[in-house]
Amino acid sequence: MKSFLILTIVLSLILVSSNFAAEHGAYFDYEGYTGPGYWSQLDVKYRMCGVGQKQSPINFHTNIDYASVSPYVYMQNVNYVRMENNGHTIELSSPQWQNSFINFDSTNYYFKQVHFHTPSEHRINGIHMDLEAHFVFEDPNTKRKAVVGVLYYIDPLGTNSNFIDPIITWAPRTKGNATYNVFVDIASVFSLVREAGPNWAYRYSGSLTTPPCHESVTWWVATKQLPISATQLVFNLRVYMGFNSRPTQSRNGRTVPGY
Amino acid sequence: MKSFLILTIVLSLILVSSNFAAEHGAYFDYEGYTGPGYWSQLDVKYRMCGVGQKQSPINFHTNIDYASVSPYVYMQNVNYVRMENNGHTIELSSPQWQNSFINFDSTNYYFKQVHFHTPSEHRINGIHMDLEAHFVFEDPNTKRKAVVGVLYYIDPLGTNSNFIDPIITWAPRTKGNATYNVFVDIASVFSLVREAGPNWAYRYSGSLTTPPCHESVTWWVATKQLPISATQLVFNLRVYMGFNSRPTQSRNGRTVPGY
Ligand SMILES: [Zn+2]
Ligand SMILES: [Zn+2]
Repeated sequence: MKSFLILTIVLSLILVSSNFAAEHGAYFDYEGYTGPGYWSQLDVKYRMCGVGQKQSPINFHTNIDYASVSPYVYMQNVNYVRMENNGHTIELSSPQWQNSFINFDSTNYYFKQVHFHTPSEHRINGIHMDLEAHFVFEDPNTKRKAVVGVLYYIDPLGTNSNFIDPIITWAPRTKGNATYNVFVDIASVFSLVREAGPNWAYRYSGSLTTPPCHESVTWWVATKQLPISATQLVFNLRVYMGFNSRPTQSRNGRTVPGY
Repeated sequence: MKSFLILTIVLSLILVSSNFAAEHGAYFDYEGYTGPGYWSQLDVKYRMCGVGQKQSPINFHTNIDYASVSPYVYMQNVNYVRMENNGHTIELSSPQWQNSFINFDSTNYYFKQVHFHTPSEHRINGIHMDLEAHFVFEDPNTKRKAVVGVLYYIDPLGTNSNFIDPIITWAPRTKGNATYNVFVDIASVFSLVREAGPNWAYRYSGSLTTPPCHESVTWWVATKQLPISATQLVFNLRVYMGFNSRPTQSRNGRTVPGY
């Protein structure tokens, strides 16, 4: 009976993963043989996850890394979202966001979606935070991406994040489902992290932190971390997505132990 | 100037690590080239970290894994401890604990030390907790180990863990330092997790979760998770030790995706 149960689970996961693979690339997750250490072997398209030289996430050392002059931010009407539980994370997107962008190096990168990782993927001085939000932008001409990473810590005062609140209420608990037309205050997150000043983020050249790990990403990781309540994180957000944080990667060309 | 700073840091880290290597094995940590994916290449003694078939930690699936009849626990005088910050974790030990033990399979395993990982190393249904305490026991005849793992979650009510409280107060903030003769109520943790009943823990045969990753460990991971406050964890314990959690490993002989 127990073997039968296991077999059934294996078969159904294989069916799910082969359907998924046909469209998007091989099934991956954060455990064992399908976890981060094996991503590059799961699909030829995932090769960069293993051989890349500018992979993300990384650990910042505040005695070496300094915040750079950060992007100009223009976010409008980034409110009514589609919330999808895609099996890896909760992702918020909307076709109405085509006019919202960040600008740096004389280029506009337009907002595509925001999603989450628990615990944080980037670390600061070797210390992780409880949640990381990735705001993904794209240059429509080059298809190069810019991702703004915002780290959240569980606040002892129990302060709820207003940005996270509607996600807790409306995000689908089960994989493959979506909720539509939910109001979320995305611009508020940018207001908060920009309180750090014009140099509000660490900049580096990196990759997607999930397969196919393409190295076409300019990262901007906010220096200011934001509070979230234990109720929002421990009993809600991380239960929906589970552990979905890639280990920190070595930096290209640098050999500082600890990176 | 910046290159010079980096060079100085590299040199001093190499000095530290070669001193350390002579005595204990090569330097390791949780980042980049010295992180978990590279442990087996750092020192010939660490080979098992790469080729082992029963490595820890793992992810438990509560539809497949059941708690087993768990050890008899006899903990006395496990109070006055030496607290060491060894660079990887905070470790509590005392020579007076030689009479405290757990018993299973007709064998006594005597208490040696307890230390911590953030976030938790074991996961349950793919979900991590905020902290994991490892209570390490040893059979003096065979030198085989038994480790009791207790997972803690940040409690929205802000409940302080009485066990953790004196650690926050007395644990050395800097690596290589120790504090002596601190009162800690270790037995109370066992009282709490045993409230789950006679089958209070998942049992499996695994390894040390740090180099040399020896596979001589019987694991007992408590099914009951315990509360810790955000102040204790976010602003204290994880700042002292940073991210020190090995990724979950594949199970020996099992090929269930997701393990
Ligand atoms: Zn991401
Ligand atoms: Zn441990």
